[in-house]
Amino acid sequence: MLDIDRRTFIAGAAASGLLASFPRLARGATDKAVDLSPVYDEIAEQRSQSIERIQRWIQQPSISAQDIGIAECCDLTMDLLRDAGFGTVKKMKTDGHPGIFATLDAGAKQTMGFYFMYDVQPVEEKEWSSPPFAARLVDKADVGKVIVGRGAVNQKGPQGAFLAALHAVRAAGLKLPVNLVVVAEGEEELGSPHFSQVVRNDDVMKALARCQGVMMPAADQSLSGTVNVVLGAKGIVYVELEASGEAWGRGPRDGEIHSSMKVVVDSPAWRLVQALGTLVSADGNEPMIDGLTDAVRPVSSQQKKLLDDLSARWDDADWKKVFGVDRWVNDLDERAMLERYVSRPSVNIDGLYAGYIGEGSKTILPHRAFAKMDIRLVPDMTATDVLAKLRRHLDRRGYKDIAIKNMGSYDPTDTALEAPPIQTQLAVYKAAGLAPVIWPRLAGSWPGYLFTGKPLELPAGHVGLGHGSGAHAKDEYLVVEPAAGKKYLGLDGATRSFVDFLFAL
Amino acid sequence: MLDIDRRTFIAGAAASGLLASFPRLARGATDKAVDLSPVYDEIAEQRSQSIERIQRWIQQPSISAQDIGIAECCDLTMDLLRDAGFGTVKKMKTDGHPGIFATLDAGAKQTMGFYFMYDVQPVEEKEWSSPPFAARLVDKADVGKVIVGRGAVNQKGPQGAFLAALHAVRAAGLKLPVNLVVVAEGEEELGSPHFSQVVRNDDVMKALARCQGVMMPAADQSLSGTVNVVLGAKGIVYVELEASGEAWGRGPRDGEIHSSMKVVVDSPAWRLVQALGTLVSADGNEPMIDGLTDAVRPVSSQQKKLLDDLSARWDDADWKKVFGVDRWVNDLDERAMLERYVSRPSVNIDGLYAGYIGEGSKTILPHRAFAKMDIRLVPDMTATDVLAKLRRHLDRRGYKDIAIKNMGSYDPTDTALEAPPIQTQLAVYKAAGLAPVIWPRLAGSWPGYLFTGKPLELPAGHVGLGHGSGAHAKDEYLVVEPAAGKKYLGLDGATRSFVDFLFAL
Repeated sequence: MLDIDRRTFIAGAAASGLLASFPRLARGATDKAVDLSPVYDEIAEQRSQSIERIQRWIQQPSISAQDIGIAECCDLTMDLLRDAGFGTVKKMKTDGHPGIFATLDAGAKQTMGFYFMYDVQPVEEKEWSSPPFAARLVDKADVGKVIVGRGAVNQKGPQGAFLAALHAVRAAGLKLPVNLVVVAEGEEELGSPHFSQVVRNDDVMKALARCQGVMMPAADQSLSGTVNVVLGAKGIVYVELEASGEAWGRGPRDGEIHSSMKVVVDSPAWRLVQALGTLVSADGNEPMIDGLTDAVRPVSSQQKKLLDDLSARWDDADWKKVFGVDRWVNDLDERAMLERYVSRPSVNIDGLYAGYIGEGSKTILPHRAFAKMDIRLVPDMTATDVLAKLRRHLDRRGYKDIAIKNMGSYDPTDTALEAPPIQTQLAVYKAAGLAPVIWPRLAGSWPGYLFTGKPLELPAGHVGLGHGSGAHAKDEYLVVEPAAGKKYLGLDGATRSFVDFLFAL
Repeated sequence: MLDIDRRTFIAGAAASGLLASFPRLARGATDKAVDLSPVYDEIAEQRSQSIERIQRWIQQPSISAQDIGIAECCDLTMDLLRDAGFGTVKKMKTDGHPGIFATLDAGAKQTMGFYFMYDVQPVEEKEWSSPPFAARLVDKADVGKVIVGRGAVNQKGPQGAFLAALHAVRAAGLKLPVNLVVVAEGEEELGSPHFSQVVRNDDVMKALARCQGVMMPAADQSLSGTVNVVLGAKGIVYVELEASGEAWGRGPRDGEIHSSMKVVVDSPAWRLVQALGTLVSADGNEPMIDGLTDAVRPVSSQQKKLLDDLSARWDDADWKKVFGVDRWVNDLDERAMLERYVSRPSVNIDGLYAGYIGEGSKTILPHRAFAKMDIRLVPDMTATDVLAKLRRHLDRRGYKDIAIKNMGSYDPTDTALEAPPIQTQLAVYKAAGLAPVIWPRLAGSWPGYLFTGKPLELPAGHVGLGHGSGAHAKDEYLVVEPAAGKKYLGLDGATRSFVDFLFAL
């Protein structure tokens, strides 16, 4: 869920060019510099295999919402992990699509965790200029040579670059400086409803407890080349509210009836509308669910400083253009908007339905009405508490009959700027002459809370250079080779960024 | 639009059996009794042709909402009118589907108007037990032999019975005692958006001005045999409200965006929900549109008396069962419910839509949201005034950007109990031993206001016996031959009821 934000919530100053070989940074097991040039050579050498690996992964559809190719893609992902050197690769049953638990024992003192997902969003095939599962190499004007396909950037492409890094290290005859643990799921695009069943497995918990953090491979450069580093993400409560005559005991019980009856028959559609109206302020912008914001942690002075930095590098006009938005809520300026973005919860209507919505008129009194809603959570809110508060809020107002269906909810994640994997990441980028933008938090959501929350309380974040776009949309792509003059990296550079990160840990 | 109500808003006491030949009633041109038995004989004689005529009419689909078969059905309807003796049959162009204006000059002193419609509702073919345009004769358990098809009761069947009456009169060698004027439209199921262009034509207005009223052929008997006589119908304002980022200048302008943006971007979906919430009371039952009920005419003492009568013959449990409703609004008892039903306006949500409403979750902030709504009007409300009040209500609350699309609206109709066509109808039914239930008004709507309103100010209503059901729904039917012991009439009886009415005028 995070990716659209990461992809688009991007603007601002340009950063400098390509990564170069550089000495291993502070927190490794040794102070000796490691010469990574043989690895870089292998990366260039293995380019075509790396591209083919990503293409093969994309060519295996894995649409979790429609259960298309999930079993096959789970097996393929396990094969790809084994090929990359993971000694143990286990399929983890859940009540939904299976997860994966894999370990690579490098005999190192340190261990690092990575989060993978192997599912992708649905496609509207006719909208694509290149078929979504063909994974074609395409020359994209003013961007470069790209792989077009569903999963190209979210997340098969960046994960493929990560695996390419492991292949290159091995081919160069080097030993990985860290052991690796991968936990993967096939339901991220569904809101990770069963991923806790993977993470909470005893063996997995033991392996994760040894990790210094859990990172998600990413392609974190914007079109302008800016590198984004993210310290946290919002949690989410995704629910479907339903008002029905059957549950209410008023209004039509079994089916729609003629609308002329409204004068004497109660309406579940009106009931839903009136109940929804109590959840936000009149302008639709302030959550009004009783007690919802009680647990919101104030913005820290460190975060204020990061927001000042963010704001200073922010191109507000550019960002508004990306979203097709003319003004922010309450006509906030960019600094205030950014603070609100990272620090406040939101209550959104994702979908609304009742009765007849086709062409023309149909005079009916619908017997049911529903709303799909997401509530985004910031620390120290929890999904469990928010669900309870939503229920209580409705109950107090007499809406006990309105059903709340939890469609996949989880807590916010929060990682300290000082956390070793974050500091390592920043050091790697800075050593390469890049000037990352640091986000205290993105408003998107991913199940990182399973790592950052109790009992593991690990740092978690995203790492990786390169550029791609179109997650959840048509013509999703990952850049293999940037057009001339571009400041983001291609596949080789992205692969190098993972090597650099691992050797800097 | 009226028919579902008429079909289903029915219960109560049984009435007596078949019509018999009876003397012409008071208000004719002559006091002499007319022996109608030769006409009745012809009705029986022509039964198969009459059935075939209705079948042919149904077999020509004429779905106005989808523009299916409209042109062909207009021509067919004109042919059927000519065959039945109408000397002048004109197609009347409108900005939508064409209307029809037909006259039959019987050389009589009196003239009677009739309203026809030749369009039908859409079908969900797979739901039908017999194809909707096959017009098959089917033995329906506990009902009798019926014609099943779209339009069977709404309105091709009753109109077919009316035409059969004219054929039988001519075949019996009798002269019609009244001249006839028919005005027809092909957009009743769309809310008659252009029917005024037919009625307001100079020639049509002149012809209608000579009429003593305008009646709609119907099959006004319930399953229990009760005959319903209706003095009026509610008016309707059917609108589509739309909130959009584009019109608002806030929120996403061009398309949906990621829902995590809600925290800083305004939501048209919330805007619509909050605006809708101001239109009714918290329980969804009382219209709160500023000034909406100002023009509501109080219930008269005559109407109170009619409501007492209605209530006395009312089977509340039966009616609740028909609608699948356990209680009326405010837990009203039947007398209070009936008074509310006939005398109060209502504000209904017919449809509600925004964003993603498919399976599972999709995290989006929709750029538009809409509601289909109908407001039912009682005298002396007018559609024009209500539309203006709705606009003003929203404007006053700052919702100027919410678009109101008028999808077809018209005024209520009201005809006095004392009006000659009503009294004739009652006399005919009573002479046949039937005890009609008189409704001061139904909550359904039809464009009768074009006749009852200025400048014509004619009585208007519905006339005709027989039984059918399923208007707007699957397996619509008209009874051709009732099952044993049933108290409603079959096609012959329905046809006789039109003959009786015409000769009693």
